[in-house]
Amino acid sequence: MGLRERKKRETRQRIADVAMGLFAARGFDSVTVAEVARAADVSVNTVFNYFPAKEDLFLDRRDWTEGRPEEVARRREPGESVVRAFRRDVLDAIATRSWRYGFNEGAEVFDALVRASPSLLARIREIQDEREEALAAALDPDGDDVTPRVVAAQILGATRALSGYAVRRMAAGEPWSVIEPALKKQTERAFDLLERGLGG
Amino acid sequence: MGLRERKKRETRQRIADVAMGLFAARGFDSVTVAEVARAADVSVNTVFNYFPAKEDLFLDRRDWTEGRPEEVARRREPGESVVRAFRRDVLDAIATRSWRYGFNEGAEVFDALVRASPSLLARIREIQDEREEALAAALDPDGDDVTPRVVAAQILGATRALSGYAVRRMAAGEPWSVIEPALKKQTERAFDLLERGLGG
Repeated sequence: MGLRERKKRETRQRIADVAMGLFAARGFDSVTVAEVARAADVSVNTVFNYFPAKEDLFLDRRDWTEGRPEEVARRREPGESVVRAFRRDVLDAIATRSWRYGFNEGAEVFDALVRASPSLLARIREIQDEREEALAAALDPDGDDVTPRVVAAQILGATRALSGYAVRRMAAGEPWSVIEPALKKQTERAFDLLERGLGG
Repeated sequence: MGLRERKKRETRQRIADVAMGLFAARGFDSVTVAEVARAADVSVNTVFNYFPAKEDLFLDRRDWTEGRPEEVARRREPGESVVRAFRRDVLDAIATRSWRYGFNEGAEVFDALVRASPSLLARIREIQDEREEALAAALDPDGDDVTPRVVAAQILGATRALSGYAVRRMAAGEPWSVIEPALKKQTERAFDLLERGLGG
């Protein structure tokens, strides 16, 4: 990586760090981009060069490309069903405390900041819808059948419920050593439900 | 109903009608509450007395209490499962072209207006989350188990996929007589998937 590129990455990182500190201290909605710029000692234009919208300052720290649901579907092992691939991915994320389903340390702080901000909540919901669309398209690229959309909604609905479960217990102050086995059990239960159905 | 009460209802209705006309003509985001007030010949304060937020001017025309998912769950027949109750409710909504899943005439116009407006989209997604929470709570009021949330997400995910299917075909200009039998088939397919599961 060249010097110029490295400097750009450092600037970007500094802006994001400064912004997150301000958001954590005062809430997302009450911090302006101008304040972030001032605290990071750059111009407002520089902030917008790196982060087109204020929401990106918050959400961009997560590498959204990493945990893409359509990639989980595409990278499934030979003979493995989509549901199995997601079950494996969620269990793997629990074992590694990955942020991709909100199992990481500090996920409850991230969640509390999102819940306190209408604009972040709106952006998160938009991202969820985009992910559902992308998964449905990966399952059936040409179809206008309702099935891939139902399947995508079922799988991502289950993972959202599991993220919520983990975050609620973290927010209640429970240690990960207690949460982890319970979360694994809930994961197996949720995916059993998806595989076997809700019954008649 | 007293005269005073009737006059209030008429005013409310006139404001909502005028607002919808302006939104349909120019898009939700580019119409201000002041313009609605002027066109309806009332003060801005009067508009806000009837509709606390601008989004309500658009969304309040739907009686959101009518199609509440927790009511569908609660009013199920003896021995009927939750999934069966929703299958029945969706099929009934198709037969009556009910707005409650977006099967009504003009649903594609409503949908296009929502899609063009970030603030309406955000509000609709918020309502969807609230409905999912309410259904999960109705299925299991005390539990902190993940199961009722997964079930709620599965059922409402399926109904959303079916609404989207109907609206896309309406927007493509297909007549209801063509859409209806296809929509029924998709509904049976979606609920069969929920009942029998996605498989291993």
